[in-house]
Amino acid sequence: MHKKAVVPLSGGLDSATCLAIAIERGFECYGLSFDYGQRHSTEIEFARGLARDWDLKDHLILNIDLGRMGGSALTDMNLEVPLDIRSEGIPSTYVPARNTIFLSYALAYAEVLSADCIFIGVNAVDYSGYPDCRPEYIEAFQKMAKLATKEGVEGKAVRIETPLIHLRKTEIVQKGLALGVDYSRTVSCYQADSQGRSCGRCESCLIRKSAFEVLNMHDPTVYVGNI
Amino acid sequence: MHKKAVVPLSGGLDSATCLAIAIERGFECYGLSFDYGQRHSTEIEFARGLARDWDLKDHLILNIDLGRMGGSALTDMNLEVPLDIRSEGIPSTYVPARNTIFLSYALAYAEVLSADCIFIGVNAVDYSGYPDCRPEYIEAFQKMAKLATKEGVEGKAVRIETPLIHLRKTEIVQKGLALGVDYSRTVSCYQADSQGRSCGRCESCLIRKSAFEVLNMHDPTVYVGNI
Repeated sequence: MHKKAVVPLSGGLDSATCLAIAIERGFECYGLSFDYGQRHSTEIEFARGLARDWDLKDHLILNIDLGRMGGSALTDMNLEVPLDIRSEGIPSTYVPARNTIFLSYALAYAEVLSADCIFIGVNAVDYSGYPDCRPEYIEAFQKMAKLATKEGVEGKAVRIETPLIHLRKTEIVQKGLALGVDYSRTVSCYQADSQGRSCGRCESCLIRKSAFEVLNMHDPTVYVGNI
Repeated sequence: MHKKAVVPLSGGLDSATCLAIAIERGFECYGLSFDYGQRHSTEIEFARGLARDWDLKDHLILNIDLGRMGGSALTDMNLEVPLDIRSEGIPSTYVPARNTIFLSYALAYAEVLSADCIFIGVNAVDYSGYPDCRPEYIEAFQKMAKLATKEGVEGKAVRIETPLIHLRKTEIVQKGLALGVDYSRTVSCYQADSQGRSCGRCESCLIRKSAFEVLNMHDPTVYVGNI
């Protein structure tokens, strides 16, 4: 019997690569996506596409009310998405406790499925401004998870795998291409339009675009204005 | 200016008492409740009532899809709520990772509000079967929370207060009465009906009923059949 893994799927480049890695390692994967009031809700459609492309066992899409709290340029339409790469500090696109909430649901789903692992595509290199993408945060979550759950108490705690955490974006793209990821089926833009076209100007677009440029590879992203 | 606290409110005896304690300690309180597909959804109305009675600054009620995952007698209508007090082990009413999910939202809300504390009415005495009610779990969550958030990184991590964690149900009731809690405005039953009447037979009812009996006090709970 295959080992099971829960894979949070944002529809982006990182989660698609993370999924391909989990599948390569032999896991039967269960996708988990969140409709949380994000301005780039088109990413849910990309996540659905990835779940189909990779023939996932199941794909749970949860509606969660995170956006109602505000506090982030990604969920508060009164705040602007910054159009550059920030040099330091925590950006306005940080969503309070987002990864903690996502990982908590993944933990619940993993417990219901008796899954062995959660594969999450967090990255501490390009997104060093987000506190909840750092290895020390993931380790602390792992410790908490062991104490939180029935399975943990019974000695079978779910393991949190972060295969991308120390990779540069270029390394992630190379890894994904080697595993057959079609990046035209992913979207990274913080404000992609309803047709899934990227702005090409927000931090997430700039980091993605730069990776393909450095690798001297074709960028399959559809940008607004370059159809 | 008052210090702020986020108080998860289930509408039950414990969270009502916890709220009264936070208010007594001088906090400006923000209620947080979850509609998560629980069979006793009438508790949301009790939470609303408590928020009004205690004149809370705000009361956020989030719809979250927790019930869709199943795995618990509280959210899966195909499972029966057990009608006795269990002697040991983790009960079928355990909801996978529920407190972790609730605390994660409380953490997000606290960060948006710049709140100092989260007051949560978990209890390790009567609910010793739930892994996510134990002090070691709360401590691990606190450590994770410091690493998870922008505020934590900036040195202002939210503090998680659990004033009921080591109290017996009788002590909780005495504490609450001293602070003016009207327990007729709370519901504890795992399967309360739509009019807020309790079954009187589930574990949560039995623990509550016994506390009033031991204290030789009037039990204001409305039970099905004793109107």
